[in-house]
Amino acid sequence: MSAEKDRVAEFSAFRQRMNERILAEDNQVVRRFFALDTQTYKAGALEVKTKEMLGLVASMVLRCDDCISYHIAQCKEVGVTRDEFFEVFSVGLVVGGSIVIPHLRRAVDFLDRLEGGAASEQAEGCGKHA
Amino acid sequence: MSAEKDRVAEFSAFRQRMNERILAEDNQVVRRFFALDTQTYKAGALEVKTKEMLGLVASMVLRCDDCISYHIAQCKEVGVTRDEFFEVFSVGLVVGGSIVIPHLRRAVDFLDRLEGGAASEQAEGCGKHA
Amino acid sequence: MSAEKDRVAEFSAFRQRMNERILAEDNQVVRRFFALDTQTYKAGALEVKTKEMLGLVASMVLRCDDCISYHIAQCKEVGVTRDEFFEVFSVGLVVGGSIVIPHLRRAVDFLDRLEGGAASEQAEGCGKHA
Amino acid sequence: MSAEKDRVAEFSAFRQRMNERILAEDNQVVRRFFALDTQTYKAGALEVKTKEMLGLVASMVLRCDDCISYHIAQCKEVGVTRDEFFEVFSVGLVVGGSIVIPHLRRAVDFLDRLEGGAASEQAEGCGKHA
Amino acid sequence: MSAEKDRVAEFSAFRQRMNERILAEDNQVVRRFFALDTQTYKAGALEVKTKEMLGLVASMVLRCDDCISYHIAQCKEVGVTRDEFFEVFSVGLVVGGSIVIPHLRRAVDFLDRLEGGAASEQAEGCGKHA
Amino acid sequence: MSAEKDRVAEFSAFRQRMNERILAEDNQVVRRFFALDTQTYKAGALEVKTKEMLGLVASMVLRCDDCISYHIAQCKEVGVTRDEFFEVFSVGLVVGGSIVIPHLRRAVDFLDRLEGGAASEQAEGCGKHA
Repeated sequence: MSAEKDRVAEFSAFRQRMNERILAEDNQVVRRFFALDTQTYKAGALEVKTKEMLGLVASMVLRCDDCISYHIAQCKEVGVTRDEFFEVFSVGLVVGGSIVIPHLRRAVDFLDRLEGGAASEQAEGCGKHA
Repeated sequence: MSAEKDRVAEFSAFRQRMNERILAEDNQVVRRFFALDTQTYKAGALEVKTKEMLGLVASMVLRCDDCISYHIAQCKEVGVTRDEFFEVFSVGLVVGGSIVIPHLRRAVDFLDRLEGGAASEQAEGCGKHA
Repeated sequence: MSAEKDRVAEFSAFRQRMNERILAEDNQVVRRFFALDTQTYKAGALEVKTKEMLGLVASMVLRCDDCISYHIAQCKEVGVTRDEFFEVFSVGLVVGGSIVIPHLRRAVDFLDRLEGGAASEQAEGCGKHA
Repeated sequence: MSAEKDRVAEFSAFRQRMNERILAEDNQVVRRFFALDTQTYKAGALEVKTKEMLGLVASMVLRCDDCISYHIAQCKEVGVTRDEFFEVFSVGLVVGGSIVIPHLRRAVDFLDRLEGGAASEQAEGCGKHA
Repeated sequence: MSAEKDRVAEFSAFRQRMNERILAEDNQVVRRFFALDTQTYKAGALEVKTKEMLGLVASMVLRCDDCISYHIAQCKEVGVTRDEFFEVFSVGLVVGGSIVIPHLRRAVDFLDRLEGGAASEQAEGCGKHA
Repeated sequence: MSAEKDRVAEFSAFRQRMNERILAEDNQVVRRFFALDTQTYKAGALEVKTKEMLGLVASMVLRCDDCISYHIAQCKEVGVTRDEFFEVFSVGLVVGGSIVIPHLRRAVDFLDRLEGGAASEQAEGCGKHA
């Protein structure tokens, strides 16, 4: 568990550090893309909760563990319940097919840890979700 | 416009006829998949409107015109507004990138026609969305 | 129906003409790739029938109508039965998800026409499968 | 040929009209994305020609006919030669695999027409490239 | 080697535990999808061996290491030979392109270990295949 | 840092060993594909530098960390500058969307290490880029 926590902290630090390096570059297209990405999930005609669920299902069918974890964390913060999460997962699974299953397992594991239940004992190799 | 309408009707008939042929086959996996697909979008912890928007954004990032049109029609029926549609589109566009743009153009054209505004005068080749 | 047949013939001619143009170019990588593609489906440890079914399912999950039609025609020639086709389709559908369904409809329509049953009356826009 | 030209003109008009409709919407994320997309291909550390070839190969491996045609036209304008085009195609083909071949055929057909050589006689269904 | 074995065992335990957690959720769509996934590979008009090879090539072109390893293990159990494996791989490689190569390397490494030959000495980060 | 270096060396050795095993197999299609892959990036109408940037952007939009790292290393060797790298990245990001961001972070981290600047302190799980 503590090796796991170190890994999560390590990845968060990596993410933070790399974002800073990327935004420090003198490339306006990249910087604007990052700003636009943030703007996309702000409340508008749709509330933040809906938009984050949209981001989550899009990440599932495109099968990106990092993105899935990020949107799960955001969804959790704005009150998505476990039953709601599983309905988002069910859409992702049916649209995207069984190829989504390995990502679903890692998504549920990440959600479990966020909820403080059934803490994962797997060291989780990629450090992708945290 | 009337050539366009014929094409839409033609495609709807094609879709209906092929679904019937597929479901008439003695293949239980395929039939169960179709049943599951229908079940996925029923109201549950999330309402139908949210689930259809999830189906729509998933279809956009996976770039399937038929699926996009189908979910736009379903969304329209359960009251998704034009502003809400564009916010779903914005998530699909930012997550999926500029490669989504041609599908966005066809999606907006389809939505326009559903709304009876700015009727498309393009014959639309693929007959995919209708 | 005769408009349909013209379209099929038109597409076959297009395919043939473009392949010839591509192979006439002085680009060795492209020409070798085409040769390698042909070699891939020759009998070896696996028979042609199995290899063509592998090509078909790969085309389904990658959602390319042209490739699906091509491999359906090849499979048909080496004796894949309708029940076997639907089992290949079922693997493609479950692995690839509901996003595969529009391609499945066009695949079954193409197979129907090959088998001379339930001839499609749809004009089929893309001319992709034939 | 004249049916073909009408179709090309029709599609160009469609593209133009839909872009205008999309940009007229009150959705800042979508509008900014379109602006960013334009900015991406401006000369910088890399010249326009190189950037357009990058856009072309990315479109090929993601298999979007509209995007491929668009970048072929842009590349042609900034002087990409036929041999250079085929080398870009060869990278797209080898990285993306045989699933790219149907798009390659349409790409070469589009390039042929741009170059005024071997004009296509195919009606081209999708109206995607032009 | 023993660190490797621990990692494989760890991943198998993770997979088993997460599947159980997922199936214990009160989400019928997800549970039915898992049941359907199992049913897909049962003997029918095609034998299990053929279906597992179909699952394998589909996983390769969609580039999912977990799924590739799973189907390699299933194929091995029903008697797919090394030469047959490489012919499945060759279809996946040619259809999917060079982007499949990193997955092919991990697939061959996994197969080597299953066959007890040339045991991998790489720690294998992701714990995905085992 | 030394754990990091060991991991990089470990992965390079893995890559080298697996390539040798694959090429030692009696499968001509696979061996020819590897040869063709090498041939693709040789100087021709386009110089090596351009071709490697094409390979890099194609790998980014298809989201393969191994391939991205490989082409970054090749690009670096033939003189691609940091500003040029970021322009290639910007094309990949805009075409492929925000789903590319996690790969961009790992790409920049890899580039940083190649350039000897801002050495990564992350253990990097997958061992994919190095």
